[in-house]
Amino acid sequence: MMNTSIAIYPGSFDPVTNGHLDLIERAQKIFGHLVVAVLRNVDKQPLFNVTERVEMLREVTKSWPGVEVDVFEGLLVDYARRRQAGVILRGIRAISDYEYELQMAMMNRKLEPRLETVFMLPGETYSYLSARLVREIAMLGGPLTGLVPPQVEARLRAKTA
Amino acid sequence: MMNTSIAIYPGSFDPVTNGHLDLIERAQKIFGHLVVAVLRNVDKQPLFNVTERVEMLREVTKSWPGVEVDVFEGLLVDYARRRQAGVILRGIRAISDYEYELQMAMMNRKLEPRLETVFMLPGETYSYLSARLVREIAMLGGPLTGLVPPQVEARLRAKTA
Amino acid sequence: MMNTSIAIYPGSFDPVTNGHLDLIERAQKIFGHLVVAVLRNVDKQPLFNVTERVEMLREVTKSWPGVEVDVFEGLLVDYARRRQAGVILRGIRAISDYEYELQMAMMNRKLEPRLETVFMLPGETYSYLSARLVREIAMLGGPLTGLVPPQVEARLRAKTA
Amino acid sequence: MMNTSIAIYPGSFDPVTNGHLDLIERAQKIFGHLVVAVLRNVDKQPLFNVTERVEMLREVTKSWPGVEVDVFEGLLVDYARRRQAGVILRGIRAISDYEYELQMAMMNRKLEPRLETVFMLPGETYSYLSARLVREIAMLGGPLTGLVPPQVEARLRAKTA
Amino acid sequence: MMNTSIAIYPGSFDPVTNGHLDLIERAQKIFGHLVVAVLRNVDKQPLFNVTERVEMLREVTKSWPGVEVDVFEGLLVDYARRRQAGVILRGIRAISDYEYELQMAMMNRKLEPRLETVFMLPGETYSYLSARLVREIAMLGGPLTGLVPPQVEARLRAKTA
Amino acid sequence: MMNTSIAIYPGSFDPVTNGHLDLIERAQKIFGHLVVAVLRNVDKQPLFNVTERVEMLREVTKSWPGVEVDVFEGLLVDYARRRQAGVILRGIRAISDYEYELQMAMMNRKLEPRLETVFMLPGETYSYLSARLVREIAMLGGPLTGLVPPQVEARLRAKTA
Repeated sequence: MMNTSIAIYPGSFDPVTNGHLDLIERAQKIFGHLVVAVLRNVDKQPLFNVTERVEMLREVTKSWPGVEVDVFEGLLVDYARRRQAGVILRGIRAISDYEYELQMAMMNRKLEPRLETVFMLPGETYSYLSARLVREIAMLGGPLTGLVPPQVEARLRAKTA
Repeated sequence: MMNTSIAIYPGSFDPVTNGHLDLIERAQKIFGHLVVAVLRNVDKQPLFNVTERVEMLREVTKSWPGVEVDVFEGLLVDYARRRQAGVILRGIRAISDYEYELQMAMMNRKLEPRLETVFMLPGETYSYLSARLVREIAMLGGPLTGLVPPQVEARLRAKTA
Repeated sequence: MMNTSIAIYPGSFDPVTNGHLDLIERAQKIFGHLVVAVLRNVDKQPLFNVTERVEMLREVTKSWPGVEVDVFEGLLVDYARRRQAGVILRGIRAISDYEYELQMAMMNRKLEPRLETVFMLPGETYSYLSARLVREIAMLGGPLTGLVPPQVEARLRAKTA
Repeated sequence: MMNTSIAIYPGSFDPVTNGHLDLIERAQKIFGHLVVAVLRNVDKQPLFNVTERVEMLREVTKSWPGVEVDVFEGLLVDYARRRQAGVILRGIRAISDYEYELQMAMMNRKLEPRLETVFMLPGETYSYLSARLVREIAMLGGPLTGLVPPQVEARLRAKTA
Repeated sequence: MMNTSIAIYPGSFDPVTNGHLDLIERAQKIFGHLVVAVLRNVDKQPLFNVTERVEMLREVTKSWPGVEVDVFEGLLVDYARRRQAGVILRGIRAISDYEYELQMAMMNRKLEPRLETVFMLPGETYSYLSARLVREIAMLGGPLTGLVPPQVEARLRAKTA
Repeated sequence: MMNTSIAIYPGSFDPVTNGHLDLIERAQKIFGHLVVAVLRNVDKQPLFNVTERVEMLREVTKSWPGVEVDVFEGLLVDYARRRQAGVILRGIRAISDYEYELQMAMMNRKLEPRLETVFMLPGETYSYLSARLVREIAMLGGPLTGLVPPQVEARLRAKTA
């Protein structure tokens, strides 16, 4: 059984940005239960490990009762089945995003036809924001205010000092 | 008050295609109440008048209890407020679609910040389908099977005979 | 029976430009028989009528023995079947072009699965060129050299004088 | 002689929006003399006539000494030569915009190689804004605050009352 | 001498997918001789080595007499000249694909003007499919049926077990 | 203080191509002082080191008195502030370029609101050209004439022999 009031928002969240947070705030109004699912990707070398990423996400989403932070590995559709989630949530911004997102959504539908992908827009203020850009600016000592929550900024400063 | 379990799927539906129907079927599993809202556009000369478009939509969606067919005119955000709907649903296919859809979604958010636009994908079989293409093929006497529901095909044949 | 050495290059050709001609030259090397098919579109008000468009095309393609100029109306796939052509040729330039072209190619494949659409690129010099731009420049009295063949330039001047 | 410190910003400006204004403010810091050039397009039926569009533009740009408002018709490159302007300024937002803008810029370069087209971005707040959307919202009685300057809002209200 | 009835379909084919196979089937009807050319890329670490990739391709294309499987390294235009092929065949799906494909086609035309690049569409069922996605799903133990031919599925299972 | 007649053209220039050179030639007519700024990127392994890249750029731009070649590292906006430059210049070609360029321009505007990004088009002949393609062709021993200046061609040959 898959439940369409449970939505999964998958990603790397390395680290969570104000763009992710804006999307989570919008989506938790629509879906009764929103699972922010951090991908444990063994191939890539992240800036923050999975435990740190989950800690930061829990801190910045703690005021929303319907939001849960979890970790997954393996196929997203298998994880969705285990969680009985009927919806995948994705944010979209640019064209190149969009093409890749469509491809993943169609493949996930092929792998699990009962699972729907739903796309939402972050606020216009965050349309240029990505975790990769945030990491680069932190590495170069640039200003992070407005790009990430204060707790994340402190951790980024500590990590890249 | 705006209710995020009420979603509006606005459009011209001149006529409803199998692509629209596929999206309605997917969306009514997610949203408790889905209002398919036919735009009464006084400027354009449609093939089917609003009454005909509503009749066809009601016929082909009658098996889904959560789906309602309605008519609107004026600003979509005003209609959404009157219906207390918190979500606008839009289908996306091609890039040019997508750009226009983003622009409308951002403008609607500016006009009514409590209203979220949510995008879903029609089945891959319908990715090339549009009401305009259907009208053109009907005008030229081409085959419509698989493009529109049988009832709509009969009406299109009668209209373009 | 559909023959894959017969290709149809459909369009309005109102009028033929150097971009069209460049594509015809490239394609006639690949396909034994290339039919340049002028659409008789009853809805639109063209600058040149179908007879004029065919005359200009015949004049500028007369040195290629494998190229034929013809007129069609109705569904392109019906015309392709009548001509026993197995290939539709289309030129692509910009993104918006491309999206529309993909949509048409997928619809034509649905209407006639034996018919393949093949895309080719005009020379880089013609990547900005379209019949609509040519008509606009002619109307405003601008220079047409390099945009259309000399015979077409003369006719454009006569038409817009 | 063409002067690269004179830039032309051509458009319909029917009416000028806050997005246009944002771009003019940014550009007048770069170019010593910025000519906002209103196209007198005889084919289209505008909401405001050329005189009204020029009046509104003059009113909202009067605090910038380097900005001039003018009218043109015919080929843009001919107008640029008459004004001895070496630069065309265009704002870009969406993909479909972008493709069309590239095509025009390449054609204008072909018609006048000494003329460069330069693209700038409006502020992110205006990325969804267009004169067409503004006209539609005004027609439907929607709120215009933040989309156009106050003087333009008053005129739009009077025109669409 | 370059022969326009000989087409080269170059790629990594690591491994061949049902999308590739669909395109090969369509193209071998148009081109008398279709060379599927596997790139020996010394920089990248493939999942299957060149010998394995060629074996799989030969197995799944053996029923089409006009299809040959070969290996190449170095510049594609040099290989095309050696094979006297006048046509490069490429499949296109998404926008990002398309941009890269245009760039390569224009560069290849610059390097060898007698060589034409021709684009074809895979079936809509395969529009989301790529060898990279197939490798990822295999690594994660997901279902491969419908994505690759049975022989390739068996080899993928053996390789990623 | 930031000066809008000083423009920075940042990039890797590994190596400078005829496309870069075409853009520099166009831009130095508009901006009194154009700083071509080579990024010292410690993460990537370039083909030419920073000293070589600067030498090549100085050689091929020496006839333009307003052009300066410099090196920077760290945040581009910090470098722009140090140089008192009010303009960032970027060339745009393809869609994927464009999306990334917009994202960077919006982020740079957020980091430094007084800094404007201005986009220009390289000549149509260079629309397919990139430093990466040039490096690949050089590695494979392909022809470089027309792609890079003669001095750069000689250095590429020496480096990849």
